[in-house]
Amino acid sequence: MKKFNIKTPDQGIKGALQTKIDLKTKPPGSLGSLEALALQIGLIQQSTSPQIHQPHLVVFAADHGISKEGLVNPFPQEVTFQMVMNFLSGKAAVNVLANQHNLEVTIVDAGVNYNFGALPNLVDQKVDFGTKNYLYGPAMTRGQCEMAIEKGANLVNQIAAKGCNTIGFGEMGIANTSSASLLMHHICQTKLEDCVGKGTGANPEQLKTKLVTLQKVLEKHQQVNSKDPMELLATFGGFEIAQICGAMLQAAENRMLILVDGFIATAALLVANQIIPEIHAYCVFAHCSGEKGHEAMLEYLKASPLLKLGMRLGEGSGAAVAFPLIQSACTFLNEMASFESAGVSQKSN
Amino acid sequence: MKKFNIKTPDQGIKGALQTKIDLKTKPPGSLGSLEALALQIGLIQQSTSPQIHQPHLVVFAADHGISKEGLVNPFPQEVTFQMVMNFLSGKAAVNVLANQHNLEVTIVDAGVNYNFGALPNLVDQKVDFGTKNYLYGPAMTRGQCEMAIEKGANLVNQIAAKGCNTIGFGEMGIANTSSASLLMHHICQTKLEDCVGKGTGANPEQLKTKLVTLQKVLEKHQQVNSKDPMELLATFGGFEIAQICGAMLQAAENRMLILVDGFIATAALLVANQIIPEIHAYCVFAHCSGEKGHEAMLEYLKASPLLKLGMRLGEGSGAAVAFPLIQSACTFLNEMASFESAGVSQKSN
Repeated sequence: MKKFNIKTPDQGIKGALQTKIDLKTKPPGSLGSLEALALQIGLIQQSTSPQIHQPHLVVFAADHGISKEGLVNPFPQEVTFQMVMNFLSGKAAVNVLANQHNLEVTIVDAGVNYNFGALPNLVDQKVDFGTKNYLYGPAMTRGQCEMAIEKGANLVNQIAAKGCNTIGFGEMGIANTSSASLLMHHICQTKLEDCVGKGTGANPEQLKTKLVTLQKVLEKHQQVNSKDPMELLATFGGFEIAQICGAMLQAAENRMLILVDGFIATAALLVANQIIPEIHAYCVFAHCSGEKGHEAMLEYLKASPLLKLGMRLGEGSGAAVAFPLIQSACTFLNEMASFESAGVSQKSN
Repeated sequence: MKKFNIKTPDQGIKGALQTKIDLKTKPPGSLGSLEALALQIGLIQQSTSPQIHQPHLVVFAADHGISKEGLVNPFPQEVTFQMVMNFLSGKAAVNVLANQHNLEVTIVDAGVNYNFGALPNLVDQKVDFGTKNYLYGPAMTRGQCEMAIEKGANLVNQIAAKGCNTIGFGEMGIANTSSASLLMHHICQTKLEDCVGKGTGANPEQLKTKLVTLQKVLEKHQQVNSKDPMELLATFGGFEIAQICGAMLQAAENRMLILVDGFIATAALLVANQIIPEIHAYCVFAHCSGEKGHEAMLEYLKASPLLKLGMRLGEGSGAAVAFPLIQSACTFLNEMASFESAGVSQKSN
């Protein structure tokens, strides 16, 4: 298993950053979360003039064995490959939202149950044609899990080599909210019913079946070790979740800013965070999604999401929509006048 | 007094808009607030393919008689004119944030206590050299108030004539949170202490003095008619607030989308809303600011703000930061594939 080397950013530059923020022509603190964001990005980049270079969104797609029985998902499994084709045509939500903000999008087959052949623009990182159904055994082997992590990590290195320093991760995989719920249950020690939501839009009866099914999954795997993130990931994960986990770990090792999307991407981070908690310093939490469980997940991570718009689409769409706030944080820090340069009086104490 | 003619948008197109939103390749409702926004913009523009044209931010600056005594504000009054110069140099928060999103910025002298002479790029709509101190009498005459409303309205017509259909309003005016608090108290019938916050950053002692001072202002004007928005505006207003009020009313009459910024801009809307409640349909609430009172103001207006980032800077900065969400709403509606066009299966019920 690849070892990652992630260190919390050196805090030595913090005072200089805070001073630069405070001397901008505005009441101290009045840019709210944008100020905290500027501080975080400056620390990650070890610069008082941080810059976003070649921002990127990587969407990992994979299928889930559980989805074939239709017990946890109202959409059929083939929607995963159909949506991959939609991503490649540039017409899905993540495409148009990323395009709005000049975010480059990369689409990855992490393990879709479909033979795409060679397609331009689709990165082939298929581990297998979907995971096994965890109602009957682990979703993947330990070897597959390690391979998925490495594939995710390697792709981030390739993207970083082109000059990218800011990266978000999205996903597509019918039934993957179920994986995220199971991982959340074990890592956050949250009751299953508080981890399971409507996903792509289960009706009340479907939601009940989903919960009952996932309860059975937990019973089947009651011997699983909650303290072993790799075992959890192999048992309940998806190939897209495992690849995102590896991608996030590598991004942090590379000192890149990580844009964390919604429920499933955050579940991948839960695993990564259990492997190396220092990853947290590199994460910006794009939004609190409308999927039940995401808010509690974010609380577990002590995360302050930037947006709360009731979005629950996945694909990295929340990361795309939050991206301009990252730019705003850098923009005010780099471009605003200081009280002195603008000749503006400061306040009395 | 100018009469405004504002009508709630015809709802006939609503069904077609909702259908178009629901047939996009995403679970129904999964774009959250962006879907509501797309519906609202489509209704305003009476189009299933709404477009944002020449978006604009207008920043109105004016001074307040009350500020000279330093009882309600930690920054000296001259900061208003100094910040106008900062706006004109393009280096204030609102400039750099608006520039990030290609929002055109117009700076207006609505009544600053400074003789700017003729300055390129500064629009001279000065009503007077600041308001009178409302500790001793009304801030302005009824005639000045009507003039301010008309000046704000006329400017919006000029901007609309150039093709703008989306407009936000910002403000600058040392002590203007006090005006906003007094207007809020009367219109929302909220206790004064719940309307008064730190503004640009009063310390606890300064905040206490501010509250005591504004209590005296209320006692001085206890005969004011809470049901008469023009009387309230003339008594407690600022010239920038009155011009924003007129600008908002005209924007709604012109069927433009109005981006409502923070505490002071929302106070201007409270007055406009009391004059013609139909204005509400044209308003997008950019954010809930960190200024005490804003959240309750938004609740009074039954408004759902897009962002809650703890910003409390004014200038229209919150409107600028929220603007890309407006674009995202139009972008997904216009550019995303439908289930049919993308060949993606829909969900079972």
